[in-house]
Amino acid sequence: MTQTSQPCSVKHLHHTCIAVKDIEETMKFYTDLFGIAVPEIKEIPDQGVRACLMTIGGSELELIEPTNPEGAIARFIERKGEGLHHIALEVDNISEKLALLQSKGVDLIDQKARSGLAGTIAFLHPKATRGVLIELVETD
Amino acid sequence: MTQTSQPCSVKHLHHTCIAVKDIEETMKFYTDLFGIAVPEIKEIPDQGVRACLMTIGGSELELIEPTNPEGAIARFIERKGEGLHHIALEVDNISEKLALLQSKGVDLIDQKARSGLAGTIAFLHPKATRGVLIELVETD
Repeated sequence: MTQTSQPCSVKHLHHTCIAVKDIEETMKFYTDLFGIAVPEIKEIPDQGVRACLMTIGGSELELIEPTNPEGAIARFIERKGEGLHHIALEVDNISEKLALLQSKGVDLIDQKARSGLAGTIAFLHPKATRGVLIELVETD
Repeated sequence: MTQTSQPCSVKHLHHTCIAVKDIEETMKFYTDLFGIAVPEIKEIPDQGVRACLMTIGGSELELIEPTNPEGAIARFIERKGEGLHHIALEVDNISEKLALLQSKGVDLIDQKARSGLAGTIAFLHPKATRGVLIELVETD
């Protein structure tokens, strides 16, 4: 198969995500200190997390707290401590973008887009992206 | 001294920064794969890095490569590998904001704002911010 040179065009750095142990405490810290509007915390059972998106200008800062002690976020915090976890790039037509990335040989965690906090999402494998976990998101 | 309840208001998530070993290679990877405009790489001798800001919609993704093998970025990569390094929040009146943070007892790396790639900058201590290195930036 000939690889296409067409890029997987991204529109916006949609959010940057921080893995935390206590989402209420960290959210209060950020909203109080930086004067950020208090967002709603949502439970995302299939990802084993609670999460919120704090709007700062045209981008968002996401906080995620593990609810599943065996899940990926709990393991991340155990291994590396609380801190920056991933970035999310906004795209149009996420299913087309995933097919395009696969045609370019980019390793994906999610072969198919699924529902997430910020819209329809899929994660690329950090091995394919120089150690940075990248989420694609198509907003609703 | 009575602590003020006034927040250190932030305007925008200005950029998210990735520490890398080879800035040319990583920049080519991101710009080719995601169709991002190729930015200029700048040398910042006092920080011991080469850096670039890739614009993605209304935010930016920064890459930094250590030029000083004894510097903080080289040590970060040695300890944790390439990956997400810090976030930068855009503010007005950075000197006032630093004074406000100090009055709130927030530990600062830079007591005084200094010149950086994105404008006038200062770093907060990650101990004060739940493990996340945060830069304040007042753009020029």
